[in-house]
Amino acid sequence: MDKWIIENKIKDKLKLRNPILIEGLPGIGNVGKIAVDFLIDQLEHKVMCTIYSKSFPHSVFVNDNNVVEMPSVTLYAIKLKDRDLIVLSGDVQPVDEESSYEFSNLIVDFAHKHGCKEVITLGGIGLGTEPSNPKVFGVANSEDALQKFAKLTNRVNFNKIKADAILGATGLILGLSKFKDMKGVSLLVETFGHQFHIGLKESKALLKALKDILGIEVKLSELDKEIKREEKEKVKTIEDQKKVLSKTVKRMYNKSSDTSYIG
Amino acid sequence: MDKWIIENKIKDKLKLRNPILIEGLPGIGNVGKIAVDFLIDQLEHKVMCTIYSKSFPHSVFVNDNNVVEMPSVTLYAIKLKDRDLIVLSGDVQPVDEESSYEFSNLIVDFAHKHGCKEVITLGGIGLGTEPSNPKVFGVANSEDALQKFAKLTNRVNFNKIKADAILGATGLILGLSKFKDMKGVSLLVETFGHQFHIGLKESKALLKALKDILGIEVKLSELDKEIKREEKEKVKTIEDQKKVLSKTVKRMYNKSSDTSYIG
Amino acid sequence: MDKWIIENKIKDKLKLRNPILIEGLPGIGNVGKIAVDFLIDQLEHKVMCTIYSKSFPHSVFVNDNNVVEMPSVTLYAIKLKDRDLIVLSGDVQPVDEESSYEFSNLIVDFAHKHGCKEVITLGGIGLGTEPSNPKVFGVANSEDALQKFAKLTNRVNFNKIKADAILGATGLILGLSKFKDMKGVSLLVETFGHQFHIGLKESKALLKALKDILGIEVKLSELDKEIKREEKEKVKTIEDQKKVLSKTVKRMYNKSSDTSYIG
Amino acid sequence: MDKWIIENKIKDKLKLRNPILIEGLPGIGNVGKIAVDFLIDQLEHKVMCTIYSKSFPHSVFVNDNNVVEMPSVTLYAIKLKDRDLIVLSGDVQPVDEESSYEFSNLIVDFAHKHGCKEVITLGGIGLGTEPSNPKVFGVANSEDALQKFAKLTNRVNFNKIKADAILGATGLILGLSKFKDMKGVSLLVETFGHQFHIGLKESKALLKALKDILGIEVKLSELDKEIKREEKEKVKTIEDQKKVLSKTVKRMYNKSSDTSYIG
Repeated sequence: MDKWIIENKIKDKLKLRNPILIEGLPGIGNVGKIAVDFLIDQLEHKVMCTIYSKSFPHSVFVNDNNVVEMPSVTLYAIKLKDRDLIVLSGDVQPVDEESSYEFSNLIVDFAHKHGCKEVITLGGIGLGTEPSNPKVFGVANSEDALQKFAKLTNRVNFNKIKADAILGATGLILGLSKFKDMKGVSLLVETFGHQFHIGLKESKALLKALKDILGIEVKLSELDKEIKREEKEKVKTIEDQKKVLSKTVKRMYNKSSDTSYIG
Repeated sequence: MDKWIIENKIKDKLKLRNPILIEGLPGIGNVGKIAVDFLIDQLEHKVMCTIYSKSFPHSVFVNDNNVVEMPSVTLYAIKLKDRDLIVLSGDVQPVDEESSYEFSNLIVDFAHKHGCKEVITLGGIGLGTEPSNPKVFGVANSEDALQKFAKLTNRVNFNKIKADAILGATGLILGLSKFKDMKGVSLLVETFGHQFHIGLKESKALLKALKDILGIEVKLSELDKEIKREEKEKVKTIEDQKKVLSKTVKRMYNKSSDTSYIG
Repeated sequence: MDKWIIENKIKDKLKLRNPILIEGLPGIGNVGKIAVDFLIDQLEHKVMCTIYSKSFPHSVFVNDNNVVEMPSVTLYAIKLKDRDLIVLSGDVQPVDEESSYEFSNLIVDFAHKHGCKEVITLGGIGLGTEPSNPKVFGVANSEDALQKFAKLTNRVNFNKIKADAILGATGLILGLSKFKDMKGVSLLVETFGHQFHIGLKESKALLKALKDILGIEVKLSELDKEIKREEKEKVKTIEDQKKVLSKTVKRMYNKSSDTSYIG
Repeated sequence: MDKWIIENKIKDKLKLRNPILIEGLPGIGNVGKIAVDFLIDQLEHKVMCTIYSKSFPHSVFVNDNNVVEMPSVTLYAIKLKDRDLIVLSGDVQPVDEESSYEFSNLIVDFAHKHGCKEVITLGGIGLGTEPSNPKVFGVANSEDALQKFAKLTNRVNFNKIKADAILGATGLILGLSKFKDMKGVSLLVETFGHQFHIGLKESKALLKALKDILGIEVKLSELDKEIKREEKEKVKTIEDQKKVLSKTVKRMYNKSSDTSYIG
């Protein structure tokens, strides 16, 4: 069985305009995932390909219709006004460190083959509590990249970061893209460092920064509604909360609420 | 040493009538295993092949005659009145996640090559205590499959399931069979989530559902005897309990009663 | 780097007379290791080959002369009166389960290529305390093998064993040898289930059984001396104890007394 | 993605004079790393090559300029008066045992190809507390090597070592170099066995021994300043401490002071 199974959804290769890769996989606070899933929900998009792998968790998800889905990640093409995005979204990351490298390399190769010269990865900085006013920090894969992106927004602090390492795809995609002469940054927002935390406010901070950097025209009001709801009624049923959010964020809620174990 | 060693037990390939793959490997409550082992015990069967693997636990079992057996799984052909079953039974699953994928893929390939268009996997939903009246839930690998199987029995709740993921072969065989256009379901029964729990009542619930779905003519009285015995005399000796059950379930009892460590 | 590096110590292949493979690698109580190392110490032997592997622990041993040694196992040829032995001795087993399979298979292949039709593996049954009168149990890889070996000694109980699985090379070498039509047994002695326990009395029980089965002419008096010394003076210095035992058993004593960590 | 990515920094192969390989990777107390990084800081050096690997930790480091760096190790050539050094320095070791073997073998091969006939690896012996007067011990890969190096310095105790195994590259590079007929020693200094301990005094002890053995002309005063500062003001800010030390040691300080988690 091949280690990486790539299911192409498009016959001919898309012609993308100055594309930039945006990565938003599950991680601390799931902030990157919520941010990109929101963009996919709100903007017109095409599925480029879906990737399955035996290095993903050896389980299947059960969706709302009681139908199972294999763990996967998907690359989407999104048209902005003046340029295009290649957005990486998914439910999983590889389970072992070596596969994390291979996966990140595969993604960077894909982006490079489709003409990407830039990349933005999204992640969370895990704190002990939920921040009331989450700050966004930035790191880059070169001095040039740092200066280039720092000019585009004042919502990101590119000057000083507390911690020393970025784990998984968020870090490796940024690091490996340097080898392909891509300029890249990681936008990292403070969040609550718990496995199933869903950082809605933190994702909103990331989206605001992305709006500056990429000139994305998207309203954050849907996300605002959800954030207000969370703040007001901490005891509100999971059912009501689910109605607004996209399928994958719903899955996030499910994971955090129930831990029955099936096998 | 090859990773998968397949010992074919039949010279020529069997001609099977509209075969359906039934998976019953060790898992939570061992409910699937007990169910398929009971079918193999009660119905006429042929051994198709036995699979050994270096991805199985690195130990040998000691049977009742003090003779060792390599960890393995076996595929059996069982003739029902109008169709045939390919039943997967065994003592182990692969020890690592990547091998779990490879193994599940190998099984789906085997079933597909032998003409299977349908699959049923069996598993347990681990609860904190032993359920007095275990319910059976169902998930499928497509909407079509869900509707098709839901019509065949009212003993399975296909509408709502509490947890979000199915681990190991029970989940992956169902998920991967979709890629081969096979329609499949997983029947999951509530059980006590302890490693060596032997869910006899829960297995009976699975078997009742299977009888509906497949029209299997098999008496569950042997299993009833054992269940009654368990309920009455919780302190009954392991020896007496062993007499009724098949070899592999006996092994289950042995594992749960004695944990001396040999190496 | 090759996974298995085999350093042949003999130019031409030895002609062995009805050879039998005896395995004595580190395990519970290290009983098998002490037994075979004692035989190698006491009997004339030739080194057949030494095996290194990147699946062994990623460390080097420091011997008494402050010189480092790579982890390895060695196969020795020992001439008895009427037949020959191939003895497997070493300091390590592979660190992961898949490599344990590959290693055991490599050893069985080697034995088979050199004409072995029989095999004896040695191991310990881990108890919670040190047994004053350790019993030896036996399991086999077939009914024929069981009966054959049971006739050769009354020091081994081949009828009933408490536990259900034998881990590592001791189990897998026995199991895999069946595929090469070799008749084999595992002699398993009760011992104290602690990682650095050195089971001298238990090894003596194994050696007595081996003497019966193989007709080995070897005095156990050296081992007796050491056992008496241990019983009398539990506070005797490590230094004195070391004098009698072979190099590898000395290493056992070192491991159990000092756990400074170097890297 | 290749497992080992070697980025050659020099066009033509260097002609080195009787080179000796010096290994100083992160380990207990990080004593070897601090020692070699100090030599690289103080002496003229050329970068030979940098090695990346998917067996290294799956994360990127963030340097002082908020720019990310892939985990790597680097081989440097340093000219002494009469001979040359090949110095191995880096931030990481492979994450799994098998890769530790492959990596060590790769390094030994590299050194051998460049004419090295000798090797010195550097490591720490982990104690429960910080030693006030750290002693240096030595082990070798042969009796000849032991005698040869013992003559060159009286700062190393080559006679007796407390512990039995050397883990990771420090041990394996020494052990594997024997297969290439290289004479080698490991200099091991007592240090505090804590993951983020930075053993400055202990590194100084190693450097003094290296000065004897190799005749290196280097002043240890910079290191002395830092040691004095540490002793005097245990509460001194991390910022001030950072000013003197090289970039990689700074990273050590960062790791030990802040454990926010990013991904």
